Amino acid sequence: MGKYAFGVDIGGTTVKIGLFDREGCALDKWEIPTVKDNEGSSILPDVAQSLLDKMKEKGIGREDLVGIGVGAPGAIDRNGNLVSRAVNLGWNPFNIPKALGAYIDVPVKAANDANAAAFGEMWQGGGKGFSNLVAVTLGTGVGGGIIVDGNILTGASGGGGEIGHIHIEDAEAESCGCGKKGCLEQYASATGIVRLARRRLEKDDTPSALREGEVSARTVFDAVKAGDRVAVEIAEQFGEYLGKGLANVASVVNPEVFVIGGGVSKAGEILFQFVEPAFQRYAFPACRNTAFILAKLGNDAGIYGAAGLILN
Amino acid sequence: MGKYAFGVDIGGTTVKIGLFDREGCALDKWEIPTVKDNEGSSILPDVAQSLLDKMKEKGIGREDLVGIGVGAPGAIDRNGNLVSRAVNLGWNPFNIPKALGAYIDVPVKAANDANAAAFGEMWQGGGKGFSNLVAVTLGTGVGGGIIVDGNILTGASGGGGEIGHIHIEDAEAESCGCGKKGCLEQYASATGIVRLARRRLEKDDTPSALREGEVSARTVFDAVKAGDRVAVEIAEQFGEYLGKGLANVASVVNPEVFVIGGGVSKAGEILFQFVEPAFQRYAFPACRNTAFILAKLGNDAGIYGAAGLILN
Repeated sequence: MGKYAFGVDIGGTTVKIGLFDREGCALDKWEIPTVKDNEGSSILPDVAQSLLDKMKEKGIGREDLVGIGVGAPGAIDRNGNLVSRAVNLGWNPFNIPKALGAYIDVPVKAANDANAAAFGEMWQGGGKGFSNLVAVTLGTGVGGGIIVDGNILTGASGGGGEIGHIHIEDAEAESCGCGKKGCLEQYASATGIVRLARRRLEKDDTPSALREGEVSARTVFDAVKAGDRVAVEIAEQFGEYLGKGLANVASVVNPEVFVIGGGVSKAGEILFQFVEPAFQRYAFPACRNTAFILAKLGNDAGIYGAAGLILN
Repeated sequence: MGKYAFGVDIGGTTVKIGLFDREGCALDKWEIPTVKDNEGSSILPDVAQSLLDKMKEKGIGREDLVGIGVGAPGAIDRNGNLVSRAVNLGWNPFNIPKALGAYIDVPVKAANDANAAAFGEMWQGGGKGFSNLVAVTLGTGVGGGIIVDGNILTGASGGGGEIGHIHIEDAEAESCGCGKKGCLEQYASATGIVRLARRRLEKDDTPSALREGEVSARTVFDAVKAGDRVAVEIAEQFGEYLGKGLANVASVVNPEVFVIGGGVSKAGEILFQFVEPAFQRYAFPACRNTAFILAKLGNDAGIYGAAGLILN
């Protein structure tokens, strides 16, 4: 019986890889560059070579492997098919487990990276002990992964959990990266917070620490912690949008808990002071006791979740 | 091995009951009144007596029954526990399968009535052949039931699929029945359409057939079919709200299909002319090819779905 699994998290710049034991402990972690030339055709061969090298280094045979889990940025169905073009990698649709399995003949599973990260947080992170959760990644964009009864909610075409693109603001004039206007991602991501800050700072001349130096999600929440009134207003707006959006998510899937991760979540639990009151205001009564907790695995959520696809 | 199942749909006024064979054909259907006195304590005993009478009439023994499925209006978890007070029946929390099983010792399952109806539409109705769907009931309110990979999405506290209470309008002054303001139900239900009609008719004096007689969802869509310009504007507003709300639902659970039922759906496929364009405008690209179809089981969806909990 296999003793190990690999978790592979393919990003636009690097591929993160972890070697895990059956209990879900990471025994080793490393990265390789993501080579996107030729429609990303060398990405999986590079991954396979890196895994084979590691197996040789550690004296691990194929019979010692339970399998390999893969997370990648794209719409991936429950059979590991990439169902539409993955723009960040250059990939056109294909079956990921079959393609990787052609190099290393062990069981392979694949999932969308945000969904894999959600699975990782449930398995070994902030969501441990829960089986119905929504993981929210507040990074450059707003990603989501939904776990229902312990399984990833993939959706019909891999679009499950795309909560960053919930429509939340009718009055928005700027376009989201997806082409729509007024998506949650335009306000609750790191770039969204900068947008809210820019608009607030332009509105009047109220003094604020944010008027000096670069404005980022980090500087906004640092200023909030220092009691900066303008920063607090920006955080309130952020909280209003995110709380409203997550209340709508709760009316659909009614999770036990929201697990909040991504760069913005480095601000810590102070985030919840702004999000939870808005959530309470907008949530359907039966969903109001949904808990908010911080993600724990950081950038490793993806490799944990990918390995968890195989081991859990 | 059992040959039959009962499907029981408990409503605020009547209890609908069906006797089904293993293939899901309704062999008999009838109703009994819902007696809500004494916190609804006689509802389940009345149901049990009606089932026992029917078994006697048909010569069906307990050994011939696969079981009994029950749908009821309230937050019901996957184990059949009513988790909060069911105001329409007067019920306080209890375990429905145990309570009914105390009268007839066969397997009993219970689910929220809207979820059961969604399950029925998947099993024997408009959603047959699909295993990822959202059933939308446009009646006095807006109900929803979500099926993921063939199973009801119950949610952590039975609040899964409460899509009528998605927040959709910041500018609403009137309160929804749930206490919030701007819920989807305030615009897309039968009463919501009347609200939109009233507001439109008060806005100016444009001639309309709707200015004579009672305004209802039916008269609005009858006038739409007759080319009434004001009625078309009302239907467009309805479509804008419902399309926007369902686009947000699609960004969360990405179903294959929306199955639209309830009294408002009697208007027929003309509804989709108003809902689909708005849905397309607001939907995340990966979710735009979600289909819209009409429910088929009408008021029987609940008994089919309840029986399906046992038979499917």
